[in-house]
Amino acid sequence: MKKRLNIGLVGLGCVGSTVAKILQENQEIIKDRAGVEIKIKKAVVRDVKKHKGYAFEISDDLESVIEDKGIDIVVELMGGVEAPYLLAKKTLAKQKAFVTANKAMLAYHRYELEQIAKNTPIGFEASVCGGIPIIKALKDGLSANHILSFKGILNGTSNYILSQMFKNQASFKDALKDAQHLGYAELNPEFDIKGIDAAHKLLILASLAYGIDAKLEEILIEGIEKIEPDDMEFAKEFGYSIKLLGIAKKHQDCIELRVHPSMIKNECMLSKVDGVMNAISVIGDKVGETLYYGAGAGGEPTASAVISDIIEIARKKSSLMLGFETPQKLPLKPKEEIQCAYYARLLVSDEKGVFSQISAILAQNDISLNNVLQKEIPQSNKAKILFSTHTTNEKSMLNALKELENLQSVLDTPKMIRLEN
Amino acid sequence: MKKRLNIGLVGLGCVGSTVAKILQENQEIIKDRAGVEIKIKKAVVRDVKKHKGYAFEISDDLESVIEDKGIDIVVELMGGVEAPYLLAKKTLAKQKAFVTANKAMLAYHRYELEQIAKNTPIGFEASVCGGIPIIKALKDGLSANHILSFKGILNGTSNYILSQMFKNQASFKDALKDAQHLGYAELNPEFDIKGIDAAHKLLILASLAYGIDAKLEEILIEGIEKIEPDDMEFAKEFGYSIKLLGIAKKHQDCIELRVHPSMIKNECMLSKVDGVMNAISVIGDKVGETLYYGAGAGGEPTASAVISDIIEIARKKSSLMLGFETPQKLPLKPKEEIQCAYYARLLVSDEKGVFSQISAILAQNDISLNNVLQKEIPQSNKAKILFSTHTTNEKSMLNALKELENLQSVLDTPKMIRLEN
Repeated sequence: MKKRLNIGLVGLGCVGSTVAKILQENQEIIKDRAGVEIKIKKAVVRDVKKHKGYAFEISDDLESVIEDKGIDIVVELMGGVEAPYLLAKKTLAKQKAFVTANKAMLAYHRYELEQIAKNTPIGFEASVCGGIPIIKALKDGLSANHILSFKGILNGTSNYILSQMFKNQASFKDALKDAQHLGYAELNPEFDIKGIDAAHKLLILASLAYGIDAKLEEILIEGIEKIEPDDMEFAKEFGYSIKLLGIAKKHQDCIELRVHPSMIKNECMLSKVDGVMNAISVIGDKVGETLYYGAGAGGEPTASAVISDIIEIARKKSSLMLGFETPQKLPLKPKEEIQCAYYARLLVSDEKGVFSQISAILAQNDISLNNVLQKEIPQSNKAKILFSTHTTNEKSMLNALKELENLQSVLDTPKMIRLEN
Repeated sequence: MKKRLNIGLVGLGCVGSTVAKILQENQEIIKDRAGVEIKIKKAVVRDVKKHKGYAFEISDDLESVIEDKGIDIVVELMGGVEAPYLLAKKTLAKQKAFVTANKAMLAYHRYELEQIAKNTPIGFEASVCGGIPIIKALKDGLSANHILSFKGILNGTSNYILSQMFKNQASFKDALKDAQHLGYAELNPEFDIKGIDAAHKLLILASLAYGIDAKLEEILIEGIEKIEPDDMEFAKEFGYSIKLLGIAKKHQDCIELRVHPSMIKNECMLSKVDGVMNAISVIGDKVGETLYYGAGAGGEPTASAVISDIIEIARKKSSLMLGFETPQKLPLKPKEEIQCAYYARLLVSDEKGVFSQISAILAQNDISLNNVLQKEIPQSNKAKILFSTHTTNEKSMLNALKELENLQSVLDTPKMIRLEN
């Protein structure tokens, strides 16, 4: 096997430059997990002068990454549809591996590329929901299953807007402005709020699950722009939330695909997915429901997915890989050094001064109280004291509990539960 | 490449027999996705007489699956620790692929097996959280990341008990009885309720993420048996739920591992994971938080994971795989044939008989009402009528909305949102 894999990176925008940064910052684990060193040999950009300080060659000659025999994988992060499609075709024709984050291009040209690729690897994990490994889940994790249906929050911008409308009674207009102000929505937000971006992703996932060659124009796509605070109020009243969903269902004789705002019951995991986060719930005929949640966009999550594809192309083994052969093996943290917040339950005699005894012990052990509930037990001289603390360490807490147990007014061994952020 | 891969299946209990069933039922997609036919050549059981009606050979000779040169992959679903460990060693020594669902065995012997395996594939997706592809997520999907921490609901039995205690104010004892009655807990439930099973899984995941060779005896493990309704009440009062978590954190100089009941904030996705379901939240240094949710146990989810490992061992390609080359390509469902429930918002003039006009139109279109909210708009003669329907079809609903719009008392184009179960 080769000792080194060379990347030709096309595009050095937000995702492209982050791919370069992570390949540098995490180079040790990436080398271990890939089994070979992974290096960017050349990056292609529109304006060479704008990109300085990189350790690799910068060029404006797109053809050169295809022609360069020293480049093993072409990584396309340029955006657009037709230019990247042409690049993909030429790369695959040379049986060179191709990795892309380009959902719009795949929404239009995935079947043509599949034809050309044959057994040449194409990685496209980053094209759907950024850092969530949903492509690999469908291709690998759920491979024993017929996919009965899936539905997902596939667009972070619209989910942020809907979350703001739901939580803060914001109007659509104000929530959109807020999203634009925070950089979650573009100045022209049409692709996101009208469901086009979500539809691109739905088409790619549906191709994986069902092999259906559906086009954007053939499926039901509605955006979130007509939703009003009244709708949110109705949803709250009857136990729903409103999410922009991409939905796919397999029927006996056809596949149903649609993107539109949906009311979903509060009990459903997807209803909890707020802000810019994405999630996809998949129903397999054998595995039942599985759900995948994470950041659907952003430089680092998307670059994480791009690099996972590069690593997958690089390696071909599947033994245990404990610690991915991490170079730096760390020892186990001793139990008593664990730090967290705590909750405790005490049974006490209901008399004066008990609580001040308790709080004195906590203070001596450097533990500060957070929430407290005191409950008398009727027809007895007993009470329960339930409290939670701010962060402290296990040793202090165990010590305090032992001291509490020794108090005459504490009638039973105190019970404790840790709090987890 | 071989045209057929032969399995030696050790154990025909709940998971083993389901693996055989799914390999049969889903054989077409499995063949397509694996690139080769996958057949069970032989199953090894303790008592041959108890297992009849299978199309493959049944034997009680464990050595024979190792020695048989016609068997390519040994799948271990026998349970126990030492016998399966011995089987794994002998299988791998012959450079034969090994697939297991055995978390207890891996919790003790994973590093010895890693040593022996070298580049021989070992599949163990089924050993942690059944149908959730969390092993593949760590090995493949998140491979560009340092794992900063992860925490998970790794045991369905204890999660069911805690969910019952939280939702129905049940005592621990009653909730456990209920779980035993439903078959979620064994007669001797110690492994589940004392956190041992969760700890096995935590150790395997921690090995993947950090390469740490921790032993059960070295880590903090506490069960759920001391939790009382008072604790649940405190949790509810202050916006928490209580879950048995397996927790792993990477520090500068050590790894922290622990299993215990934890109070977690309601805003956290894990707090929504109820009943027997499992979920793991992973924080990667680049991708941020991703979360994986699904059935953590049961014959079909576990068998689904076992077979995904077999398929991964069988294939070595990574092109687009749209539809996994599904043999049966289905057409797209026409938009107007979509069936779901609907919500609609109407602006109406606030006069007598309006609601009866509306409900008449819905009835004529075969649409039945579910929830209704009517809101007068103060200082106007207008009102809003918000309603949801039971399931109907898109065509009827669109037709009804058109007819509603034509009513003189309806003052604006009706707005509609679909409901999704």
